[in-house]
Amino acid sequence: MLASALLVVSLRPAAFRIRPSSSAPVCADRAVHRRSAWPTLQFGSASEYKEHLTSQGSLPEGFRVGVHGFKFTPKEADMQAVMNITLIALDRPTSSFAGVFTRNSFCGAPVTVGKKRIEHSAAIQAVVINNKISNVCAAGDGVQSSEDLCAAVASALELEGGADAVIPCSTGVIGWALPVEKMVEALPATAAKLQADSVVPAAYGIMTTDRFPKLRTYPACGGRLVGIAKGAGMIEPNMATMLSFILTDVDVPKHELQAMLRRVVDVSFNCVSVDADQSTSDTMLCLSSAVKPLPPGEAALAEFEAALTALATDLAEDIVRNGEGTSHVIRVHVSGAPSSELARGVGKAVVNSNLFKTAVAGNDPNVGRLVAAVGSYLGKVAPELDVTGCRMSLGGQLIFHRGKFDLDPTMEKSLSAHMSEAILTGSNGESLKYPRHQRCVEVGIEMGLGDCECTVFGSDMTTEYVEINADYRS
Amino acid sequence: MLASALLVVSLRPAAFRIRPSSSAPVCADRAVHRRSAWPTLQFGSASEYKEHLTSQGSLPEGFRVGVHGFKFTPKEADMQAVMNITLIALDRPTSSFAGVFTRNSFCGAPVTVGKKRIEHSAAIQAVVINNKISNVCAAGDGVQSSEDLCAAVASALELEGGADAVIPCSTGVIGWALPVEKMVEALPATAAKLQADSVVPAAYGIMTTDRFPKLRTYPACGGRLVGIAKGAGMIEPNMATMLSFILTDVDVPKHELQAMLRRVVDVSFNCVSVDADQSTSDTMLCLSSAVKPLPPGEAALAEFEAALTALATDLAEDIVRNGEGTSHVIRVHVSGAPSSELARGVGKAVVNSNLFKTAVAGNDPNVGRLVAAVGSYLGKVAPELDVTGCRMSLGGQLIFHRGKFDLDPTMEKSLSAHMSEAILTGSNGESLKYPRHQRCVEVGIEMGLGDCECTVFGSDMTTEYVEINADYRS
Repeated sequence: MLASALLVVSLRPAAFRIRPSSSAPVCADRAVHRRSAWPTLQFGSASEYKEHLTSQGSLPEGFRVGVHGFKFTPKEADMQAVMNITLIALDRPTSSFAGVFTRNSFCGAPVTVGKKRIEHSAAIQAVVINNKISNVCAAGDGVQSSEDLCAAVASALELEGGADAVIPCSTGVIGWALPVEKMVEALPATAAKLQADSVVPAAYGIMTTDRFPKLRTYPACGGRLVGIAKGAGMIEPNMATMLSFILTDVDVPKHELQAMLRRVVDVSFNCVSVDADQSTSDTMLCLSSAVKPLPPGEAALAEFEAALTALATDLAEDIVRNGEGTSHVIRVHVSGAPSSELARGVGKAVVNSNLFKTAVAGNDPNVGRLVAAVGSYLGKVAPELDVTGCRMSLGGQLIFHRGKFDLDPTMEKSLSAHMSEAILTGSNGESLKYPRHQRCVEVGIEMGLGDCECTVFGSDMTTEYVEINADYRS
Repeated sequence: MLASALLVVSLRPAAFRIRPSSSAPVCADRAVHRRSAWPTLQFGSASEYKEHLTSQGSLPEGFRVGVHGFKFTPKEADMQAVMNITLIALDRPTSSFAGVFTRNSFCGAPVTVGKKRIEHSAAIQAVVINNKISNVCAAGDGVQSSEDLCAAVASALELEGGADAVIPCSTGVIGWALPVEKMVEALPATAAKLQADSVVPAAYGIMTTDRFPKLRTYPACGGRLVGIAKGAGMIEPNMATMLSFILTDVDVPKHELQAMLRRVVDVSFNCVSVDADQSTSDTMLCLSSAVKPLPPGEAALAEFEAALTALATDLAEDIVRNGEGTSHVIRVHVSGAPSSELARGVGKAVVNSNLFKTAVAGNDPNVGRLVAAVGSYLGKVAPELDVTGCRMSLGGQLIFHRGKFDLDPTMEKSLSAHMSEAILTGSNGESLKYPRHQRCVEVGIEMGLGDCECTVFGSDMTTEYVEINADYRS
């Protein structure tokens, strides 16, 4: 039932093979490391999923995590709220760390501080994360709030590096201010809960509207990587997702790790979308305790990068699977594209089409909307392309080629059945507190225009999505 | 209660004035012709609305319209469906006509034929429109189907110009084939219903998921323009909306009319979005019976263009007001932008943010999502811009400036009340078969970076939107 082995295979889930084309451009990033297309994980209940998390959640050597929750009243609203503080601490300061952040022009104060740490800090020894309030564009001085919190963490943990050794992350409501005093008061209790056994409490602690925690692990280079992520809405990362933390004991030099993380994010988190809304707070951090030396040579670096890619891809997919109101995950494999960028753009156009998303929610194989979405995107960005060679499949069945559909009632039923099989919610359509399986609605688009490909994951759109978001804060 | 007078005034609905900036670029299209920001039309019931349509729907001289419906079974699905054929006929062939069409790379067969007519036909004498099936990417030869239908129309109406004098338009399910034989059979009955009194039957006949017909009229140059439109979903026109027909008796030369229509579409239909899905069938036609001579001189042309702009803007807004599941219209006025294109992009980013749309549906002033959407767009397309001068308002109240919100519980209540007042649906949230009023949720964004502006209209997103689209075809 569990997929703990690292499989590094090229994945082509859809109905098409790449057609070799001597004149087509060659894509540098074509050999994306992916696992088998079909589900490897399947759970029958929330407790089965929890058991799985426990078995996967051991912290790499050199790390401790602690979580503490407290009640407070935001100054912007008449309500009582609960905030979790999560601490990730290293036994020793590390110079092996990397981070990528949102490109939103109105980014959060923690992003501003986090970027400074990645660039200027010689060593990192802790990450402090809060949910409920994102510290974005709040009244007062958000950057100072984050810095004050970092200083308090450094003091509570007696870190030699001071505030500069602490990276702050916040997620939650935009526009509200952090209750810094209350948070500082909560730090001793959080520090008292630090333990070296499991990352699972942190996977729970960082959640907001997430239905279930997201945690993945892979071995590499004689050590291990374990990663957690939060995020369910405002998800079309332009670097990473809301918040994701990957911890490892393998000592990868900082400059290698930073470059690697950028490449990895590009083929994992940058290929998913829940609602096409890029957050102000997206942050992905990778920290190494550097306990295990990296074996010499290029092969070890490649092995580590493959594991990091697989882990990030898993977490990115988990976020889509856990998207707000998601009842189906849509996997679009675009091939035969003239560039990787265009392949990703086509895939994103499909998973971001509200009309296609709603059709999938209803198990309605309204394939006209699929073609309309692809055509709308291409008409905007590349009207000069000849699209007559474009072929599309749904659930492995060829539905469109030579500019035409060939549909009949039997095909419609079969396509609808494929969609039904990928439903993630319960028999009454209710949300489950665990991911049932990893099946997707499989869309294949072979453009016949080159040699580049990309796999994009997205959510359907349900009435639950609207209900969650029509009054998120109350 | 009725707004029949043509008001040509510059509109700035939001809280900001344009700040003159000597170094800022000048926008050629700044002086957009708009009416007053606040509602001019208000209806208490469906019958009141119907009465209004009747009073507005007189056909300009030289036109007749007829509609006929029939039942059929599409060959692609086990279901019985009803299709309307709508004919718009001119008493005499006209050389005064213009059209703009979708830029979707997979456009419909009627679009292909329509483009050919606009370019190559010397004269037009009829338009044939069907709903239910859009004739896009269907099996068989969709273009031939459209041509066959045009030939049959020419024959039924005894048009000297033959098929080349007929423009075909289709809207409805993508991927299905037109039941051409059945349609041809229905033509004599349709022709028998042609009458010269009112365009209202056509406004009803072209509807698909529309809740109510859309019809506007303006006087100009001693003559009149009357326009109808259909469209409720798959609406982010990249030229026009699903289908729109503007009829006039003023004799505007074809080359002037075509250029004018492009300019008009750019500031009307290209500034609205219901669901960010650009249709495969978008078609906007303007036909003149040329009964009334255009007065000589530039002033007359300008007067006609102002009326055409006002009419197209009204229809475009009506389509948003009638969007699938729409319970609020959102009006975003972007000013102080470095270019008109960027102004429109910012506005579109706001009305296409699913998170902002759902918040509006819930009367939830989650203004963080507004800033996140603007920042996400700017971070992608213009990360070099300094956004610190950006100010935003909601319902005329300043909510964001100098990179910060300043929120409190009183402000939240006032913003929520503004949203409640703009609700279009009934007291139980149910759809109404008429537009209650023209109030909008008013968003103002003053970028402080230039002299360009744009007003964009969009829909909120409700559970009804999802329900309509989860199983549209059944």
